Amino acid sequence: MNAHPRLSLNQATIKYASLDEALRVTVEAGYRSIGLWREPVADLGLDEAARRVADSGLRVSSLCRGGFFTLPEGVERRAAIDENRRAIDETATLAAAGASGSAAVLVLVAGGIPAGSTDLVGARARVGDALAELVPHAASAGVTLAIEPLHPMYAADRAVVSTLGQALDLAEPFDASAVGVVVDTFHIWWDPEVFEQIARAGASGRIASYQVCDWQTPLAADVLLSRHYPGDGVIDFAGFTRAVEAAGYRGDIEVEIFNQAIWDAPWREVAARTAMAFDAVVAAELDPVAVSTT
Amino acid sequence: MNAHPRLSLNQATIKYASLDEALRVTVEAGYRSIGLWREPVADLGLDEAARRVADSGLRVSSLCRGGFFTLPEGVERRAAIDENRRAIDETATLAAAGASGSAAVLVLVAGGIPAGSTDLVGARARVGDALAELVPHAASAGVTLAIEPLHPMYAADRAVVSTLGQALDLAEPFDASAVGVVVDTFHIWWDPEVFEQIARAGASGRIASYQVCDWQTPLAADVLLSRHYPGDGVIDFAGFTRAVEAAGYRGDIEVEIFNQAIWDAPWREVAARTAMAFDAVVAAELDPVAVSTT
Repeated sequence: MNAHPRLSLNQATIKYASLDEALRVTVEAGYRSIGLWREPVADLGLDEAARRVADSGLRVSSLCRGGFFTLPEGVERRAAIDENRRAIDETATLAAAGASGSAAVLVLVAGGIPAGSTDLVGARARVGDALAELVPHAASAGVTLAIEPLHPMYAADRAVVSTLGQALDLAEPFDASAVGVVVDTFHIWWDPEVFEQIARAGASGRIASYQVCDWQTPLAADVLLSRHYPGDGVIDFAGFTRAVEAAGYRGDIEVEIFNQAIWDAPWREVAARTAMAFDAVVAAELDPVAVSTT
Repeated sequence: MNAHPRLSLNQATIKYASLDEALRVTVEAGYRSIGLWREPVADLGLDEAARRVADSGLRVSSLCRGGFFTLPEGVERRAAIDENRRAIDETATLAAAGASGSAAVLVLVAGGIPAGSTDLVGARARVGDALAELVPHAASAGVTLAIEPLHPMYAADRAVVSTLGQALDLAEPFDASAVGVVVDTFHIWWDPEVFEQIARAGASGRIASYQVCDWQTPLAADVLLSRHYPGDGVIDFAGFTRAVEAAGYRGDIEVEIFNQAIWDAPWREVAARTAMAFDAVVAAELDPVAVSTT
C-alpha cells in the first residue's frame, strides 16, 4: 500500500491513537510523513517519543501546536510564552528524529479575545509582541514558527488571526526561516484575496505548511469538528494546490481532520480513505518529480 | 417610552410577529423606525401592508431581502432575477408609505455555491452579473440595492460575498444611489481591514444600512441563530459606530437578531431590551444632533 510521497497524516485525524499507534497506522498505510501533536508526545516523554519517531522511518511534517498569545502581560502570559519555548525545543528534537526531509515547523494558533474584552485590535497586537519575544529562541533552535490563520468563525475564542494576509503581515518583520505561515484550505478557502496572498507567501518563502481538508454544510453543532475529507465539500483543491505549487512550496502536505465520525472510525480505514481522497483531488496538481525536499 | 431616534427594530428580531403586530410593538416601544421583511408583507398583500405602514407613522429603514444570484443561467436564475424585480418594487412602495426619512433600501444576500460545485470564483462573478441586470430597474424605482457581506461561515451555503471590501468592489461599477452596502457588525467584526473599508464605503457614499448585533461563543448549534443583543458579546460597538459616523452615515440603525431564545421571548420585552442595549453601547457614539435624514 502506498500513499502519495508528499502526503502526511496529521495525527489529529486519528485523534484517539497514541503516538505509537499513530506511527504504526501511518507506516502501514504507506505514508512517509506524519504531523505530530504535543500531547501524545508528552504522554511518552519527549526523548522516548523521538526514538519511536526515528524508528518509524517517517518524516515529521510539523508539530501542533503553540501560540495562545493574546493575554495581556501577567503570570498567564508569561506561562504561555514559556510553554512556547518548550514547544520550540520539542519541534527541533522531533524534526531531528524524523527521516531526512522532516520540517522543524511549530504550528501556532494565535489565541482568542481575552474573557470580558472587546479589544480585538489589542489582542492582535499582542500576537506580534509574542512573536518578537520567541523569534530568537526559534532561530537558535532552527525552528520555523508557522502562524495559522483560522477561519473567522473562531476569531472570538481561538484565533484573532483570520486571514493569510494578516498572518503574513505578522510574519514579515522576521526572517522567513524563523516565522512562516500555514496554508490550511479549511480556514481560508472563502477569502476573496487568498490566491494573491498565497503568491505573496511564496514570494517571501513563508509557506511553512500546506494542510488540506474540506468544508461542508450544514456545519457540525460543534463548529470545531466540521472538517471533512478533501473532495467531500465545496473547496476547490485543484485551484489551491496549483496556487501553492506555483508559490514554490514542495514540502509535505498534511491532511488534518477534526470530525467525530472520522475519529470514531477504525484508524486504518481513515488512513486509507485519506490517501484515496488526496490522490483524487490533490495529487494530480503536484509536480510529479518533487518529492519532499523541505 | 422612547427609543433612540435613529434606532430601527428589524422585524426579524421579533420573527413570529405579523406585520401588524410588529408595527404595534415597535410604535409602543417608542421607536420611530422599522426594518421590514418581505414575507410578512406578502401575508397582508403589498397595498394593504403599505397602508398599515403609513398608519403606523414609522419610518421604513430597509426591506429584507433580495439576492440569491449565484445560480448559472437557466430557469431558476431567471426566476430569481424576476423575484428581485418584484422586491425592488415592494421596496419603493414601502419606503414611500413610511414616514419622512424612510430609506428605499433592499438588502441583498448574494447566495451560496450551487449544489455540487466548487467554483466559488464563478459564483461570485454571477453576483456582479445579476447586479448589472437589476440596476436599471432599481435606479428607475429610486431603490438602492444594498449588498450585505455575510460572515465567512456562511460562504458555502448562503453568501459568497464575505467582506465589506468585496461588497464595495461589486458595488463600484454602479452609481452609489443604485448600489450600496450593508455594514452589519455581526458579519464583519473580525475583518482586519474592516475600518479602512468602512471609511472607503463612506467616501463613496455607499453605506446604505448599518445593522448592529453581537457575537458570542460558543456559537449556537444552528449558526444562523447565533446573534445577540449589542453588548452581550465581543464586538467593539463604540469603535464600529464611531467609524460609521465618521464615514458620514446618518441614517437609521437597525438591530436584527436571529436567536431562538429572543424569538421565544415576549415581543415588548425584546423591543425594550433592544432599545436599552442600543442606548448602552451604540447611542453614546452618535452625533447628538443628527436624527435620521436618509
